[in-house]
Amino acid sequence: MSSQRYKLIVGYRGTAYHGWQWQYAAPNWKGPRPPTGLGIPTVQQELKKAVQHVVLHPVNLVGSSRTDAGVHAKGQVVHFDTPLSQIPADGFRRAINHALPDDILVHTLEPVDSNFHAILNTASKRYEYRIHNALDRQVFGHDLAWHRWHPLDTDAMAVAAERLVGTHDFMSFSKAGHNRETTVRTVLECSVRREGAEVLVGVCGTGFLWHMVRIIVGTLVEVGLGRYDAERVGEMLAARDRRAAGATAPAHGLYLDWVRFGAARDRKSPADDAE
Amino acid sequence: MSSQRYKLIVGYRGTAYHGWQWQYAAPNWKGPRPPTGLGIPTVQQELKKAVQHVVLHPVNLVGSSRTDAGVHAKGQVVHFDTPLSQIPADGFRRAINHALPDDILVHTLEPVDSNFHAILNTASKRYEYRIHNALDRQVFGHDLAWHRWHPLDTDAMAVAAERLVGTHDFMSFSKAGHNRETTVRTVLECSVRREGAEVLVGVCGTGFLWHMVRIIVGTLVEVGLGRYDAERVGEMLAARDRRAAGATAPAHGLYLDWVRFGAARDRKSPADDAE
Repeated sequence: MSSQRYKLIVGYRGTAYHGWQWQYAAPNWKGPRPPTGLGIPTVQQELKKAVQHVVLHPVNLVGSSRTDAGVHAKGQVVHFDTPLSQIPADGFRRAINHALPDDILVHTLEPVDSNFHAILNTASKRYEYRIHNALDRQVFGHDLAWHRWHPLDTDAMAVAAERLVGTHDFMSFSKAGHNRETTVRTVLECSVRREGAEVLVGVCGTGFLWHMVRIIVGTLVEVGLGRYDAERVGEMLAARDRRAAGATAPAHGLYLDWVRFGAARDRKSPADDAE
Repeated sequence: MSSQRYKLIVGYRGTAYHGWQWQYAAPNWKGPRPPTGLGIPTVQQELKKAVQHVVLHPVNLVGSSRTDAGVHAKGQVVHFDTPLSQIPADGFRRAINHALPDDILVHTLEPVDSNFHAILNTASKRYEYRIHNALDRQVFGHDLAWHRWHPLDTDAMAVAAERLVGTHDFMSFSKAGHNRETTVRTVLECSVRREGAEVLVGVCGTGFLWHMVRIIVGTLVEVGLGRYDAERVGEMLAARDRRAAGATAPAHGLYLDWVRFGAARDRKSPADDAE
């Protein structure tokens, strides 16, 4: 029986979820799986339930990015296969959305070639990190941005961010225990801009290490507070030591913005891009 | 011992709370109190705990509006008394905010004359109701606006809203069982405007009946969907019957916007303005 692959662009508020899927220690952990019956669902579980509710057969969902607990997504990309054909895409999308909780939404759904793979075809990804930089916290959306009330010097942060653009060894900006063959990654954009009380950090790259964006943001914030000079970022990269960089910013300010696709790459581990 | 009265302007996201305080049937219900140990706190409880944590003595909080479960506030006004004097207002405010959960915030705190009363001095109040009028729901903030995906005719809604301005008997726009001496109220503003995908209904008045704003919004939405003609609103008022008006809009789109004060009024019941 022939099968049809579908590509979905999915948004979610990560607050109530244990991330895209259960993670235990490093993303490519080979040991026993963690208990999954603790009552906190994953986004993948909820989406799988909703899709299965519509197609009435088990599906295997593959997501581009294994976002951590509390991390949000505007454009997570997911694929799955179904032997069903002739499903009108718009009705299919709306039926899935109807079965989903309010904080997960399928923005688009389209049939794609069976060669498409949400992880293996990833060419680049963009993350955005939102900092609420004002004296008082945000009452409506305290879980959607990191509140830092000390004034941040965004000019200094932007200078430091620029130093991270390019191909570097990001070992200092990676959570220990990553078990990767290489910690060299290419950052295409690392920008800082202010919009009123919000400071937005954008990081785009061809691949990321675990917690890499959150450690970049934590480091940039320390630069913005005047604790480090922007020039120190080069030394941090050279140190190849997690302790050289700043603290890890909390999950609730991070958004997977979008994923772009190209030809399939030779990837050692499909779990490479956990964030 | 002399005592100092403080006036607070408080904002909160009502999603996680059982309203400003426990309500059972009508706001001026005289029967037994409901159980309060069900695990869902009220905003008043949380604020009382935070204030007491700072002043170290029991306080009695009086709030201008008894917002219902799920209703939000940008400008709830609260007063309380303390025998403590010489507390610097800004430090006092920050200490209370530090002790509050993330979804409640004291915007301002100031010492006021002991004649000030958050309920008895109320001259007018404004509520705002947010409708998310787009095909897809909002992933970030599904609990902050009512999602109606059918296109709403905001011009027709604005015409109907205008009919409600003035002094009318709002019995048809009040939850049954209100037990009020009079259902005549004065609406100073009833406006409808669109901002992108958001439709905002603003209602300002000198006093409100229970669920009055939510029934007004539910009725205006039915006008916006073409179910009623805007002119029908006059007949609804004249009917003096809850069944004549539209459905009650859900709590999670409603915000207490602000409260203005004047000389104390002769009010029969301090619980008059529950929403």
